[in-house]
Amino acid sequence: MESLSLHNPVFVTYVVCATITILKGVGMSWLTVVRMMQEKGGFRSPEDLRKTRLNSTPDPVQLQPNERVERIRRIQSNDLENLPYFLVAGLLYVVSQPDPKLAQWLFYGYVGTRLAHFVAYLSAQTHDLRAALWTPGSLIIIYMAGASLMAALHSGF
Amino acid sequence: MESLSLHNPVFVTYVVCATITILKGVGMSWLTVVRMMQEKGGFRSPEDLRKTRLNSTPDPVQLQPNERVERIRRIQSNDLENLPYFLVAGLLYVVSQPDPKLAQWLFYGYVGTRLAHFVAYLSAQTHDLRAALWTPGSLIIIYMAGASLMAALHSGF
Amino acid sequence: MESLSLHNPVFVTYVVCATITILKGVGMSWLTVVRMMQEKGGFRSPEDLRKTRLNSTPDPVQLQPNERVERIRRIQSNDLENLPYFLVAGLLYVVSQPDPKLAQWLFYGYVGTRLAHFVAYLSAQTHDLRAALWTPGSLIIIYMAGASLMAALHSGF
Repeated sequence: MESLSLHNPVFVTYVVCATITILKGVGMSWLTVVRMMQEKGGFRSPEDLRKTRLNSTPDPVQLQPNERVERIRRIQSNDLENLPYFLVAGLLYVVSQPDPKLAQWLFYGYVGTRLAHFVAYLSAQTHDLRAALWTPGSLIIIYMAGASLMAALHSGF
Repeated sequence: MESLSLHNPVFVTYVVCATITILKGVGMSWLTVVRMMQEKGGFRSPEDLRKTRLNSTPDPVQLQPNERVERIRRIQSNDLENLPYFLVAGLLYVVSQPDPKLAQWLFYGYVGTRLAHFVAYLSAQTHDLRAALWTPGSLIIIYMAGASLMAALHSGF
Repeated sequence: MESLSLHNPVFVTYVVCATITILKGVGMSWLTVVRMMQEKGGFRSPEDLRKTRLNSTPDPVQLQPNERVERIRRIQSNDLENLPYFLVAGLLYVVSQPDPKLAQWLFYGYVGTRLAHFVAYLSAQTHDLRAALWTPGSLIIIYMAGASLMAALHSGF
């Protein structure tokens, strides 16, 4: 059977989790926009101080870091350090034809802990809690990449 | 028919747009290099102040942010916040067997608006114009991810 | 033959190199954690100054950039500017059915030069050496993306 098709239940689970993950990741850009508009600041380019329809009263302070905007940027950085690796490792893991039950646990576990990590980061919980919620996702990526590597090494080529 | 093969016209369109997007993204690294060499600055590591063949007259000012270099870094950041999600969402969208005409519009629309966004950012146009050129690409990613998610949820598993 | 299966030797090589690359990339997050714990600093969020089990004696200096931590963050940034493009360009290159010998050279060449780049960056070698070790990987991505683009353009659609 073809691995990367919607006839493969493991791939279907991957697509569900990958697309939720992508929507969450893209959501950070929109949340940055929302907060920049609420704060009327947190901009980064000199030209953002030009008077425009969206910025009718420019002020140099708008280019200084704004903590409410920076928080979203840190969350987004954390996503960019994790999600692309998950997306590719997950795809290769599907091709390695893993146990479907285990694959489901890993995929949904990844999405669940990442969403919990987001809530913890957004609401400024302690570093300890944030770390505890980041760790499972990172271990899941490592496990999936390792399992795919093993499958490739044992493929007979 | 296999979705991820060059016998599938939708996948062919995806490959054209994905590779152009990748070449554009990688190009930002090279443009950063070009500008660092032109400016002889915008470096970031302490060791970059060592006297070498490429940096014959080191000066601490070389480690300070240089706006011409920082502009390319901001453009690159914007790419990294968008292109990886496009690349994966687009691949999954191909597997969901979308209408070929719509898929073409979305893929070429993404590439076109991202290139226009690049020109606007490089030439320091207003924040409003940059935002207007960023928005369609982000919406295209969201649409493709959402459509792939729907296809997976309706696959019968 | 299906391109994206472990029956295709070129895909197997890709999986080996992609998963090593992912493990390396994820490793940077863990190395950041290790160094933050060693230095008890290099934090970035205001809430990281709360007294917790992992941070029993908070101090505002912990939020200032710490060069040993920042070095890993710069290495990680460099990864994020390169690895996602490699991962996708490599996958599309596999589908373009390249010469297996050439593909092997490119994939292993990528992994080898990136690991060497990491060692050079970690040990603060000169900018010139770092650039020399970064360049082949970037050219390999460009070549693979270009070859995949050509294959797509010549597919007859």
